[in-house]
Amino acid sequence: MIIVLKSGAADAEVDDVCRRITAMGYAPHTIRGTLRTVIGAVGDDRGKDALLSLESLECVETVTPILKPYKLASREVRQEPTVITVGGVTIGGPAIVVMAGPCSVESRVQLLEAAAKVKAAGARVLRGGAFKPRTSPYAFQGLEDEGLKLLAEARRETGLPVVTEVMEPDKVDVVAEHADILQIGARNVQNFSLLRRVGEAGKPVLLKRGMATSIQEWLLSAEYILASGNPNVILCERGIRTFETATRYTLDLNAVPVVKRLSHLPIMVDPSHGTGHWEYVEAMAMAGVAAGADGLIIEVHPRPEEALSDGPQSLKPERFAALMEKVRRVARAVDRDA
Amino acid sequence: MIIVLKSGAADAEVDDVCRRITAMGYAPHTIRGTLRTVIGAVGDDRGKDALLSLESLECVETVTPILKPYKLASREVRQEPTVITVGGVTIGGPAIVVMAGPCSVESRVQLLEAAAKVKAAGARVLRGGAFKPRTSPYAFQGLEDEGLKLLAEARRETGLPVVTEVMEPDKVDVVAEHADILQIGARNVQNFSLLRRVGEAGKPVLLKRGMATSIQEWLLSAEYILASGNPNVILCERGIRTFETATRYTLDLNAVPVVKRLSHLPIMVDPSHGTGHWEYVEAMAMAGVAAGADGLIIEVHPRPEEALSDGPQSLKPERFAALMEKVRRVARAVDRDA
Amino acid sequence: MIIVLKSGAADAEVDDVCRRITAMGYAPHTIRGTLRTVIGAVGDDRGKDALLSLESLECVETVTPILKPYKLASREVRQEPTVITVGGVTIGGPAIVVMAGPCSVESRVQLLEAAAKVKAAGARVLRGGAFKPRTSPYAFQGLEDEGLKLLAEARRETGLPVVTEVMEPDKVDVVAEHADILQIGARNVQNFSLLRRVGEAGKPVLLKRGMATSIQEWLLSAEYILASGNPNVILCERGIRTFETATRYTLDLNAVPVVKRLSHLPIMVDPSHGTGHWEYVEAMAMAGVAAGADGLIIEVHPRPEEALSDGPQSLKPERFAALMEKVRRVARAVDRDA
Amino acid sequence: MIIVLKSGAADAEVDDVCRRITAMGYAPHTIRGTLRTVIGAVGDDRGKDALLSLESLECVETVTPILKPYKLASREVRQEPTVITVGGVTIGGPAIVVMAGPCSVESRVQLLEAAAKVKAAGARVLRGGAFKPRTSPYAFQGLEDEGLKLLAEARRETGLPVVTEVMEPDKVDVVAEHADILQIGARNVQNFSLLRRVGEAGKPVLLKRGMATSIQEWLLSAEYILASGNPNVILCERGIRTFETATRYTLDLNAVPVVKRLSHLPIMVDPSHGTGHWEYVEAMAMAGVAAGADGLIIEVHPRPEEALSDGPQSLKPERFAALMEKVRRVARAVDRDA
Repeated sequence: MIIVLKSGAADAEVDDVCRRITAMGYAPHTIRGTLRTVIGAVGDDRGKDALLSLESLECVETVTPILKPYKLASREVRQEPTVITVGGVTIGGPAIVVMAGPCSVESRVQLLEAAAKVKAAGARVLRGGAFKPRTSPYAFQGLEDEGLKLLAEARRETGLPVVTEVMEPDKVDVVAEHADILQIGARNVQNFSLLRRVGEAGKPVLLKRGMATSIQEWLLSAEYILASGNPNVILCERGIRTFETATRYTLDLNAVPVVKRLSHLPIMVDPSHGTGHWEYVEAMAMAGVAAGADGLIIEVHPRPEEALSDGPQSLKPERFAALMEKVRRVARAVDRDA
Repeated sequence: MIIVLKSGAADAEVDDVCRRITAMGYAPHTIRGTLRTVIGAVGDDRGKDALLSLESLECVETVTPILKPYKLASREVRQEPTVITVGGVTIGGPAIVVMAGPCSVESRVQLLEAAAKVKAAGARVLRGGAFKPRTSPYAFQGLEDEGLKLLAEARRETGLPVVTEVMEPDKVDVVAEHADILQIGARNVQNFSLLRRVGEAGKPVLLKRGMATSIQEWLLSAEYILASGNPNVILCERGIRTFETATRYTLDLNAVPVVKRLSHLPIMVDPSHGTGHWEYVEAMAMAGVAAGADGLIIEVHPRPEEALSDGPQSLKPERFAALMEKVRRVARAVDRDA
Repeated sequence: MIIVLKSGAADAEVDDVCRRITAMGYAPHTIRGTLRTVIGAVGDDRGKDALLSLESLECVETVTPILKPYKLASREVRQEPTVITVGGVTIGGPAIVVMAGPCSVESRVQLLEAAAKVKAAGARVLRGGAFKPRTSPYAFQGLEDEGLKLLAEARRETGLPVVTEVMEPDKVDVVAEHADILQIGARNVQNFSLLRRVGEAGKPVLLKRGMATSIQEWLLSAEYILASGNPNVILCERGIRTFETATRYTLDLNAVPVVKRLSHLPIMVDPSHGTGHWEYVEAMAMAGVAAGADGLIIEVHPRPEEALSDGPQSLKPERFAALMEKVRRVARAVDRDA
Repeated sequence: MIIVLKSGAADAEVDDVCRRITAMGYAPHTIRGTLRTVIGAVGDDRGKDALLSLESLECVETVTPILKPYKLASREVRQEPTVITVGGVTIGGPAIVVMAGPCSVESRVQLLEAAAKVKAAGARVLRGGAFKPRTSPYAFQGLEDEGLKLLAEARRETGLPVVTEVMEPDKVDVVAEHADILQIGARNVQNFSLLRRVGEAGKPVLLKRGMATSIQEWLLSAEYILASGNPNVILCERGIRTFETATRYTLDLNAVPVVKRLSHLPIMVDPSHGTGHWEYVEAMAMAGVAAGADGLIIEVHPRPEEALSDGPQSLKPERFAALMEKVRRVARAVDRDA
């Protein structure tokens, strides 16, 4: 922790800060510059907000942590990449894994048609929402438990493992019973009770980045799951909120190399939510793979113009098949299987 | 809903879109400009995402809703302001209501001292966190149930009603038993299961804006609570995320007149979280009242430099008392009681 | 400057960094933590980007400056507030100064009517654009030189000093000849050649914050003017760009107390551009004064619905007069004259 | 233009708005819904802000343009892509063009070494700043005219055409004399006098996106240049400002497919400024090409740790050569030459 004092801080104030640092179990090291005094507090400060509270002292200008606040999610703790195998599919290995399917499970016919077609095009995991987090209480909220059963049926039909969102702690068990991967949506990235519960559920977790979540906060959310005993966390960049309105969100592909540098966890990219418009999905899918992502998650609907949610960003099956061809070529160009 | 077609859309395409609009139960009105054809779909489209999915048609450029998507939260549905009375305190009336207390309940001594002092300075509601949403799993997570009991004790001692955060559906009942107002934190503003549960709990709800929540989305979150049968929602602006790092968040006071125009719900301002630094709290508290807010929520700690959370933004009791004096003067200048 | 090394940095690497720091004229101080080594480089590093370039070394994780990069604009260099007197009006003193007038000078009649009415309502400075920075090349670009002459005439008629924007170095002289205060618009806040030129022109400068300019960068832009020999810089917050679209920009009133803490320069608030909508101007004007601003700049047009630019955010004269009454009351509540 | 009236607007108000629309030369079409009346104003409204000013009427809720405000930059006006040839290099054609070189021209030795090495690795254009827009007045401001001469010398030595920034109208002629492509930097993207001047200079222009410039505004800035008679505009995405601080800016690759859809102009990507850190440049360069960019602009310095500006984001020549190899593979995977 680096504590910068205000200019003109008196010797007694410097001494007082050092005393407080020592009392908290850290070793203070004082550097007196010509204009500012800086105190380094040596020790493991992660999660220790008491040090940060020194900023409320009149003589202190800023308190800045040096260590990354996450541990288990960090490359420093674990150098080799985390590789997760689920339903015969390996995520975080050499192969680019594509998860695809409709935004919402709307009916048996819709889901089975979508599942068959994304499988045929090369998707390795089926996505589909049974519980839908909808901005409006008047919007379609998903088929809920019935949707879970349809997903399980689609898995039996196609052999594809299933990823689906869970939105509340009480539903973790039933979702875990029917799905292979539990998805935490962007709006729940800091729903800490839910993170702890999925950490205990024993199934891999796909953790989407929130629309205003910094990469550091995102890794701390992963840390909640890891610290609950579940090492199988897959990160998923899905767009952040910026001033730009030409896209629904701003898919932040920079997060891919940043996460690869800071963490050993696999990272996927969701160009459907990230752009919000089907015409941009293919370009950003290819870019995501080129940036180093371990996989993609893409919305595919047999008839997007009739979708009950997210139609504008859903691909028709034939467009998805074309995308898969292009993604494979980019994957090979970056030495990944596809 | 306004559907703008791409330039060069063929007559057959225009007809097809009109047919689809009619099939969904809306009346299409076509306006042919020199460069673009625009179709208005007349009908109540709120929560009807199927219309939005028309954007996935090749000939459609954009689909834009005309109606605000919320109903119960809207000024159009209810002209007169919502006034909420809780524990003898009236929120949304002529008086500016100040809620104050520590970020976290840390101990009996700390809480009772804070409660006595904020009451003496004029606060009408006691705030204090028992369950704390912490970015890091290694940070202090609150005293939990023990914290609730201390809050109830502080209420008995001071007579101040209590507001405290609830973070998961399963805890709504126990929190509602001990607290007078249930707070939904910024990170849970789109935790829809939780919103529904607090909507059913029968106690007033303080709904904080999320750090990336648009005002429209925020009102839709309020709509979840209202639609669950609870009319007593208090909005609270607490800062949004922007590029500026001189403050922890950017307290968006513009939200105050915007909400007052769009909704009948009372709105409060949290300058402590909004700025993240005690030196800015007083100025932004006064500005919030001048902007038309119905109240303030302010963090006060007997010894901020020892706080287990949010010390940098907590006021010492004597600073809070000085702030209250100034807030009263501004309140009177905008014809509010204080 | 604080240089944080990557974990596992070898002793030879630490020595190499220290050697480089010494060679650049700074004194290195090494703090060895259990997980990280941190090196403080003592010396005046402002404007010395060479130190920052150490971040490109493999063993370095981050390089962070300690000193604020501006000097002349800083409270540390000058404690007492800067007070600027122009045309008999004092900015930065006890009185709240309101500048008002139309967005663009459109005609003699429009300008003189606006000038007379804003003066009658209590404005102390007349604003009006002769050169207009318009996003579209097809939009009205201002009356240019003819507009300057009309502004000078309005000054003669009303006695109000005039503030108007200058957009390019070659026009600084002619604008300075006709106007009392030179305005640098948000889009030119980092037009450094223009900043230097207005720094040399000898007239007070109203420096608007850019829509994506951090407060630190803004003060550095002020520093360009100050370093060119012109001490009379007035800052003006006018809204930053965020994800929120309910307002045109997000007026960042937090900038007021932050600037007051960091700098001695006066700061004004522009609620017209900041919100982009006339219905929000009054509330944010009052809030700006309550936050501690030294003045306001407000767009007033005799017939906003016919304005050639920014009609939606312009007030009718009678609304402006009502606003002035309210602003005066808030000003007195914060011990300012009005 | 779509004008949405407030709910409860009286018939007389609807008539008044229609009359005003007609008086401005547009044809009004009224759609009366159950809750709202909407008026379409048919006609070419681009650049006609008077229509927008109707929003200041009490009965009007919003005024929204339908047409894109730019014309010459639009795909609707020109379907086929713009291809620009300069110094034997074709931009916007099948080949990915890489521009590379140091951030600032610092010395003859530095520039010639950088130029030779980027050429050897496959760069087709040499970049280097002679006039530098620096946030701080105390930072290195560039070698200015001397830098231009060195760039011209480097061109003679290597045969590479040169791109360099011009910051003020008075310097356009001298820069155009020495350089092949005039760069408009992010901070000048809305410096409209400068845009007009480079529009008249007759040399291709590389127009960087501003850090808070929407894609629509960016295309309008291009429109200024196109409307001044210069069809040779190359757009360059270089990162926008968001809340994320793990990267210096957020390189917005979404802009690539969006621009390709809306405009015929070529677009390049600058991963050096976009990320601000050399470790992320390679990944984002590959992603940019995969997203469909026509080229890259990359900072390369013989000794980044001694750079006078932007060292942290500069690549060593050998890293750049490795990047070029990878970029070539991705380019081929998306059917581009490299």
